Amino acid sequence: MENLKEKSLALHKELEGKISVENKMDVTSLEQLSLLYSPGVAEPCLEIKEDVEKAYEYTWKGNTVAVVSNGSAVLGLGNIGPEAGLPVMEGKAMLFKAFSGLNAIPLVIDAKKPEEIISFCRMLAPTVGGINLEDIKAPECVYIEQTLKKELNIPVFHDDQHGTAIVVVAGLINAYRLMNKDLKDAKVVVSGTGAAGSSIIRMLHTYGVKKIYATNSLGVINKKFADEYNFVVHELCDYLSDLDGEKTLADCMKGADIFIGVSLANLVSKDDVRSMNKDAVVFGLANPNPEIPYPDAKEAGARIVGTGRSDYPNQVNNVLAFPGIFKGALSVRASQINEEMKIAAAEGIASLISDEELSEEFIIPNAFDPRVADVVAKAVADKAIETGVAKED
Amino acid sequence: MENLKEKSLALHKELEGKISVENKMDVTSLEQLSLLYSPGVAEPCLEIKEDVEKAYEYTWKGNTVAVVSNGSAVLGLGNIGPEAGLPVMEGKAMLFKAFSGLNAIPLVIDAKKPEEIISFCRMLAPTVGGINLEDIKAPECVYIEQTLKKELNIPVFHDDQHGTAIVVVAGLINAYRLMNKDLKDAKVVVSGTGAAGSSIIRMLHTYGVKKIYATNSLGVINKKFADEYNFVVHELCDYLSDLDGEKTLADCMKGADIFIGVSLANLVSKDDVRSMNKDAVVFGLANPNPEIPYPDAKEAGARIVGTGRSDYPNQVNNVLAFPGIFKGALSVRASQINEEMKIAAAEGIASLISDEELSEEFIIPNAFDPRVADVVAKAVADKAIETGVAKED
Repeated sequence: MENLKEKSLALHKELEGKISVENKMDVTSLEQLSLLYSPGVAEPCLEIKEDVEKAYEYTWKGNTVAVVSNGSAVLGLGNIGPEAGLPVMEGKAMLFKAFSGLNAIPLVIDAKKPEEIISFCRMLAPTVGGINLEDIKAPECVYIEQTLKKELNIPVFHDDQHGTAIVVVAGLINAYRLMNKDLKDAKVVVSGTGAAGSSIIRMLHTYGVKKIYATNSLGVINKKFADEYNFVVHELCDYLSDLDGEKTLADCMKGADIFIGVSLANLVSKDDVRSMNKDAVVFGLANPNPEIPYPDAKEAGARIVGTGRSDYPNQVNNVLAFPGIFKGALSVRASQINEEMKIAAAEGIASLISDEELSEEFIIPNAFDPRVADVVAKAVADKAIETGVAKED
Repeated sequence: MENLKEKSLALHKELEGKISVENKMDVTSLEQLSLLYSPGVAEPCLEIKEDVEKAYEYTWKGNTVAVVSNGSAVLGLGNIGPEAGLPVMEGKAMLFKAFSGLNAIPLVIDAKKPEEIISFCRMLAPTVGGINLEDIKAPECVYIEQTLKKELNIPVFHDDQHGTAIVVVAGLINAYRLMNKDLKDAKVVVSGTGAAGSSIIRMLHTYGVKKIYATNSLGVINKKFADEYNFVVHELCDYLSDLDGEKTLADCMKGADIFIGVSLANLVSKDDVRSMNKDAVVFGLANPNPEIPYPDAKEAGARIVGTGRSDYPNQVNNVLAFPGIFKGALSVRASQINEEMKIAAAEGIASLISDEELSEEFIIPNAFDPRVADVVAKAVADKAIETGVAKED
């Protein structure tokens, strides 16, 4: 780790920014200047004035997204502020370019209140084709995204919520394909009801999973106790199974088919895993140390295990999702990214592993599989058209 | 012109954005991903959390500016809205890259009220090393810039105000060098008290010019009538000479040494120019058609004539100013761009023409002179240190 620290600091210092803005053409002659700037630039301006949709033809709007963060929940580092979040947002912009070809603008903003972030994004909207919210703390992040989705006519997507959720669902689809069982019948336990947890629960519900339990620091979540919860957890109660005596995470784990942890390191014991049903699927996604280490989960009898780490099989890495999601949504000028499009993205990711390749150690494609973004983009674009949120076909 | 229109539209359509965000390094391996993104990226984040100034070392902040506009006064097209202003802001970003090497992010925002624009820029500040305000209508633009200058610790510069003013002053410095006269003794008439006009008057006052008259649609500006004026014109009254019977622009022109028009086409007649003093300097900067055409001003006896056009000598083009201004200010992490730095920039631009080269037809350097940005940057950086607004020496 010491070595990684020094190398990363040295590299960041050398680069002074991991991305740059570059010109697609030279401006070294008066003729170029008169076409690209004054007076020629007035022509596309006037076209767009007549029809704002033409911004997609004459500017970079249609292939550019903003990565917006206030630095309030960066990686596992917590509320480190906007400037300190900038290296992550630059990194995210790099991933956008490398995996989808889209331009991404990292914008770290001095905004503490949800209404400020909402106001910033509302003003920003004319500039970009979509907004990727990033590393904003829960539960505010959910309110911010939901409000912006209602107000804006460009896609707004909080990756910490849905990126992880989409890859989790992709992994579960393939796990159940491998085992030839119906995911909808599984009993699922989700540990954590923050950004990722809430989206995972919502997606599983949309997918048709009927038995979902959730736990957080307040214990097992149930509508009987809804008064204690914030608005996000309150909403989740509608998707969760009723209490049947379960009080603790350990209670829930008994007889569960799937465990998904988006919470804290080492929260789950080997005995907890042993208490699950046969063919158990365990995704411990706390980073860098999962809810239960990969080897321990396997030892305790889990059939399929996933983590957020690249040094074990089945890495849940949201770089599999967001580049293709935005590429697809922007390609058809979708006005939003709805639940159906997220499910389509998960199915697209899952489809990249053939029946022959599928195994306990390979239910999630490699993060660098060059096919991923285009497959996800097509699935998302098709679904946007099918569900009527695309502006053209 | 028809040809320019078609060519410009075709080029803009082909490019779909004149700029792009590019990665400075590949992210095609797990090792690169772990250094540039998770988990290695946490290291620069933590360094910046301890000291926000380190954002200048580990991110692109120190070599990146935002070009912010609400599209309310774009070129000569008026209030065409944010999307329609985007081609201009992309063009401006191109010029930043081509002439100074800085990254520039075009941000066209849905914000009508000054307080909204101020709020957006305030939130945006952690992301960038400086903010270039662009094409925001007067007089609001002056209030917006003045407020942000007070509140933020990064340079904020409204180019429509000061870019033009700096090049005008550079031209006047050289005109008076050529004629071997003292600019401070000249009687100057400025037509127009909007963005550019107000800054020209302020700069000439700072430079030491004692006799300045201004006119706008209300006639000759004078503190006797200050109740009629908006806050910007009101402030200008402090820098303007007292009324001595002058009522109209034509009155003022009599016996004037310098005319600067940042107002309307064809406002000035040959007779007006004939009524000026010997060795008259006439800058008609209304675009594309100046207050008096270049040939007419010469015919009427003006010794030195400048316009905003590239097809006549002495083009006042603010690409001579803003790239070097920001390059210089960012190089020393100046907290602002003060009046002294603007004068230094003007003197830097003027210095590029040697005594031997200087002539009536060559008082302003060519917009493509490759030396300009660095000379301006050095002058601005030195003056920032000298006036105590630079963060390091």
